[in-house]
Amino acid sequence: MPRPITATIDLQNLSSNLKHVRERISPDTELMAVVKANAYGHRLELVYPALGEADSIALLDLAEAGLLRVMGWFRSILLLEGAFEFSDYAAIANLKLDFTLHNDEQFLQLKRFLSMSPPLQDSRVFVKINTGMNRLGYTPERGVAVMLELMTLRHQEFIGPVVLMTHFANSDVIPPQGPTAAEQATVLKQMAVDIRQKASDVGLKSCDFTTSLANSAGALYHESDAGNIQRIGIAAYGSSTSAVTAQQEGLKPVMRLTTRLISIQKLQKGECIGYGSRFLADKPMRIGIAACGYADGYPRHAPDGTPVLVNGVRAHIAGRVSMDMITIDLTGVPEAEVGSEVVLFGDEHLGVDEVATACGTIGYELLCAVAPRVRFGVAEN
Amino acid sequence: MPRPITATIDLQNLSSNLKHVRERISPDTELMAVVKANAYGHRLELVYPALGEADSIALLDLAEAGLLRVMGWFRSILLLEGAFEFSDYAAIANLKLDFTLHNDEQFLQLKRFLSMSPPLQDSRVFVKINTGMNRLGYTPERGVAVMLELMTLRHQEFIGPVVLMTHFANSDVIPPQGPTAAEQATVLKQMAVDIRQKASDVGLKSCDFTTSLANSAGALYHESDAGNIQRIGIAAYGSSTSAVTAQQEGLKPVMRLTTRLISIQKLQKGECIGYGSRFLADKPMRIGIAACGYADGYPRHAPDGTPVLVNGVRAHIAGRVSMDMITIDLTGVPEAEVGSEVVLFGDEHLGVDEVATACGTIGYELLCAVAPRVRFGVAEN
Repeated sequence: MPRPITATIDLQNLSSNLKHVRERISPDTELMAVVKANAYGHRLELVYPALGEADSIALLDLAEAGLLRVMGWFRSILLLEGAFEFSDYAAIANLKLDFTLHNDEQFLQLKRFLSMSPPLQDSRVFVKINTGMNRLGYTPERGVAVMLELMTLRHQEFIGPVVLMTHFANSDVIPPQGPTAAEQATVLKQMAVDIRQKASDVGLKSCDFTTSLANSAGALYHESDAGNIQRIGIAAYGSSTSAVTAQQEGLKPVMRLTTRLISIQKLQKGECIGYGSRFLADKPMRIGIAACGYADGYPRHAPDGTPVLVNGVRAHIAGRVSMDMITIDLTGVPEAEVGSEVVLFGDEHLGVDEVATACGTIGYELLCAVAPRVRFGVAEN
Repeated sequence: MPRPITATIDLQNLSSNLKHVRERISPDTELMAVVKANAYGHRLELVYPALGEADSIALLDLAEAGLLRVMGWFRSILLLEGAFEFSDYAAIANLKLDFTLHNDEQFLQLKRFLSMSPPLQDSRVFVKINTGMNRLGYTPERGVAVMLELMTLRHQEFIGPVVLMTHFANSDVIPPQGPTAAEQATVLKQMAVDIRQKASDVGLKSCDFTTSLANSAGALYHESDAGNIQRIGIAAYGSSTSAVTAQQEGLKPVMRLTTRLISIQKLQKGECIGYGSRFLADKPMRIGIAACGYADGYPRHAPDGTPVLVNGVRAHIAGRVSMDMITIDLTGVPEAEVGSEVVLFGDEHLGVDEVATACGTIGYELLCAVAPRVRFGVAEN
């Protein structure tokens, strides 16, 4: 058999999380499920059956968009970073994808494509504005001009509806520096006013567009600034989006990562464990060796004390994570033996966020990192 | 096209690294190339053509062993952690694999298998001894008894040759606590004496076995304690095994991870970048956004200042790594533009170890973490 490390995907919990978000947002809002990075590491083909609650889907890779069409998703799909090169527009047309414009290189390629190909009336165009994240997107000033050009292209039926989009840098935290979600939203709102004013000034016949601002934390905690289309990623997978824990928010874990003990060592006081002999036994103790290492995606940063569950009982990592194994202090679990189940995260008693916090990172990273050599399966509910 | 992040595997460098190790070790030593974790993230099917210098191969997964047999590897393959369950012995027989015994659960299953199946004469048995790593392996005391039982099974032609094996905890460092490689080797040498003495005491007709101690650092820096079979992992992939850098050692990078700039932002003094607004511009600056994030396996821990090469020029990360992007201070690279190449690691001017050190980890983790969504290719030499 393969190594006994397994990720089990709970589709009922994924569906429940999407319904939970749906109940929290305005009824007329479009709920866009974000499934980039292979559904945040959950495997797109596995989670697909649970995405029915979403109005639309967002991702990065054309191949993943193609997979969704093959699996039968006929509602909207947004390419969050748009085209990476000119030839992508042919695929966008073929797969009827929505796409983002975040810089003028992309816009020039779009105009070149529209000049020589049938129109992209089935594609919505999301214009990404940099309102303080300083990652992707137009400046507000340039964004207004781009929006006006797109309004014209829309009026001429070259493209589908236009969406004014931005991304929050700090919807999950109150930062010591940098803009708040409300400040970023204010920039976008002012832009919307400017766009309509300028459209009127130059005599544009129509100037209809919607907005998309919120990610998960934005949708849950900045409702008035969330916009018409809300992009729900991490909340769908049941991980926390903010200081509010997933459990407090009513979100349920979707991925449960488990393995088994493959050996047990008895240490004497003064003996050490693993590479660099980081952990030193201060008393006689039993150590469980579990088949899970950093090559499975488990964080090598995990310090002594990082929690796991052994046979359902809370225990802690002792010694450095190696490529294929972790070592666990079994002091509180005397009945543990070779073959005992070890939960690494994704249990109601051990959320991915708690493990991530212990390792100085966020749940997103642990979920995305689960490696191909880990067996995946769907939970039987 | 897919996102422009690409891992390019240099087979000449892999082959060169194996030859380099070959020249450093005793001529009669068996060089065992370790390709677990999908060849430390390099993709087993890609690196396979460069493994010819190795006498044998070691890995963990039966599926990877099967793949090697299909690709035409007819020399020895060792399952480093042995059987995970009873049924694995049938696959071991079928694929003619060497295997490890590290605990009595495995040994009982082996004896059960031998009692009901044809013998495993084509399989070498590696008896793993815990000499201070405290991860897998028998105590020296129990190990002597197991070795004597195996000597008998060997004499009766139930199994192939027997190897006494251990693993160094600290061959790469001088630890503040815990055993040195020399101390661990001493334990194994004493065991070998004890085994031969006891074999003689009980009148065993033959007592032939070899030893396997060294990993890469052991082979390169603890030659007298390395044993007959040396397990070469990280050195093959051109990453450092110790305080001696890969370049100083004469090892060449095998994986080169590159991407491209997909956007450029101009910041004013006082503006911030990315999630949590971690980086604050203290002057007007250009920021390059590269298509590489933690969902590609790049470490989210990377602090401001982590090096990259943009158009061959050294530049540094500014702002938090996000799921799909990093942000780079382009102050020293004024000619950089959308489409410029970004080397993340694996260049002669930017080794994986330097990036790993900047991120508080080791090259092994970065190599293993490169995600399935990254395109892989083989370098044209």
